[in-house]
Amino acid sequence: MEKRFTLTGKVYLAGGGPGSAKLLTLRALEILRAADVVLHDDLVSDEVLAMVPPHVAVLNVGKRCGSKKATQEEIHRRMIAAARNGQAVVRLKGGDPLIFARTRDEIEALREAGIDFEIIPGITAATAAAAVAQIPLTDRKNASKLVLVTNHRVPEKDARGWHTNLTADATLVFYMPGSDFAMLSAELVESGLREDTPCLLVSQATRPGQKVNRTTIRDLVRTPALAAPSLLIVGAAAAEARADEVFVSGGASNPVDEYEEISLDLSQPDEMTAG
Amino acid sequence: MEKRFTLTGKVYLAGGGPGSAKLLTLRALEILRAADVVLHDDLVSDEVLAMVPPHVAVLNVGKRCGSKKATQEEIHRRMIAAARNGQAVVRLKGGDPLIFARTRDEIEALREAGIDFEIIPGITAATAAAAVAQIPLTDRKNASKLVLVTNHRVPEKDARGWHTNLTADATLVFYMPGSDFAMLSAELVESGLREDTPCLLVSQATRPGQKVNRTTIRDLVRTPALAAPSLLIVGAAAAEARADEVFVSGGASNPVDEYEEISLDLSQPDEMTAG
Repeated sequence: MEKRFTLTGKVYLAGGGPGSAKLLTLRALEILRAADVVLHDDLVSDEVLAMVPPHVAVLNVGKRCGSKKATQEEIHRRMIAAARNGQAVVRLKGGDPLIFARTRDEIEALREAGIDFEIIPGITAATAAAAVAQIPLTDRKNASKLVLVTNHRVPEKDARGWHTNLTADATLVFYMPGSDFAMLSAELVESGLREDTPCLLVSQATRPGQKVNRTTIRDLVRTPALAAPSLLIVGAAAAEARADEVFVSGGASNPVDEYEEISLDLSQPDEMTAG
Repeated sequence: MEKRFTLTGKVYLAGGGPGSAKLLTLRALEILRAADVVLHDDLVSDEVLAMVPPHVAVLNVGKRCGSKKATQEEIHRRMIAAARNGQAVVRLKGGDPLIFARTRDEIEALREAGIDFEIIPGITAATAAAAVAQIPLTDRKNASKLVLVTNHRVPEKDARGWHTNLTADATLVFYMPGSDFAMLSAELVESGLREDTPCLLVSQATRPGQKVNRTTIRDLVRTPALAAPSLLIVGAAAAEARADEVFVSGGASNPVDEYEEISLDLSQPDEMTAG
């Protein structure tokens, strides 16, 4: 594909999806192929990064990247400088760039600098995890709303956070659920949810290390934390999930699912999608 | 692409995304190209349907389709019969199949019939609308959670619905907001939100007829309803949206945005994406 964007620099705030390259959008793939430079977060999978052509400059600006940390201001400076230099800059984030991706600051910086930009949505972790576990996130019987929250603690901020006003008719999804499940379990009960509310811990959805554990709020404490990126789904919708392991006490009514394979096809990209 | 699925029938519950064919996932496109039959809802766009190869049987089973209505049971029967006949069946829905898409019944029917199925997530309307309006759906300052609801009334059910326990630190997104904005506005205020809370009405996001109107809860009543599919975003995150029109009273602090074009590229699919 010829580059169509080199004369006027532009920034593409793009969603890299949950992990499988097959869950990139056509627009995201098109932009990755036309890019001059890709600035990506740690959460973008190797499989997605492999879709970027070899001549494109690829830089990990992830905040968890140990000694190679880039500050938010450095990310802004790099994006703006490259765009002013006429380059097509892809700012690639895991999942969707507008959900728990700290994109607000980048939008503001680009607006202030007068840089043209486009936002390309991505498949967010909640829907990928639910697809893998084969459960709806809303349904007319049990889940009239879907609430996406994070359990990430912001000590300096007196945020009301997620633990206010929960209702049983919602599906609650924690991005970054942390590993202190004892505290989380207690807070969910204090917030008004029943102890037997189904929970689903999904790790690395659509990636090779993918794992789905089903439990309840009561049994969350004896459920092992799983590798990041992980996500916790709480609510009646989780009851019928396909799971690799089940952690439910008194489990006569919750037998381990017969389970053969996770449904998402993770085979190699074919000729259509190869970078 | 050769068909790889014809020997063992299977159903693919797939997300068709918000409208633009460029927001299909690679996996969805791959499956549409390999399908024997596509059963789609009304909300799937013509642009997406144009990606289905001509030899594939395409059937609109949308519930709003006037005299051609298919009942949910008919949809189940068709899916199951075709899969038992060894066909690759794509059940294609607008947006994401797990968010306000009534997929639970279809999952149950397929499980009961012992039919193998895969769920392919799609770009849901909320992220597409936010991408077009260039706003984050969560941010650390104003929106620590994202709540997806529907304003669709279910008279026979005494559901608590969305209008309980709203908090100002959330972004609230109404799928199917209806057209009675006077009632909606009153209910939002009764639920505890401030009258000057920003609102964004987004119609046909990523489609040719796309329109974005910015308003507030107070001014919602004088904002015209827009063509379906539409969606209403309520919360501080909507304050800085790019909009086609602004309906805000006493609007000195809310001037009409300088606005040239919606950012999502709706150009024709190129050779990579052509069906």
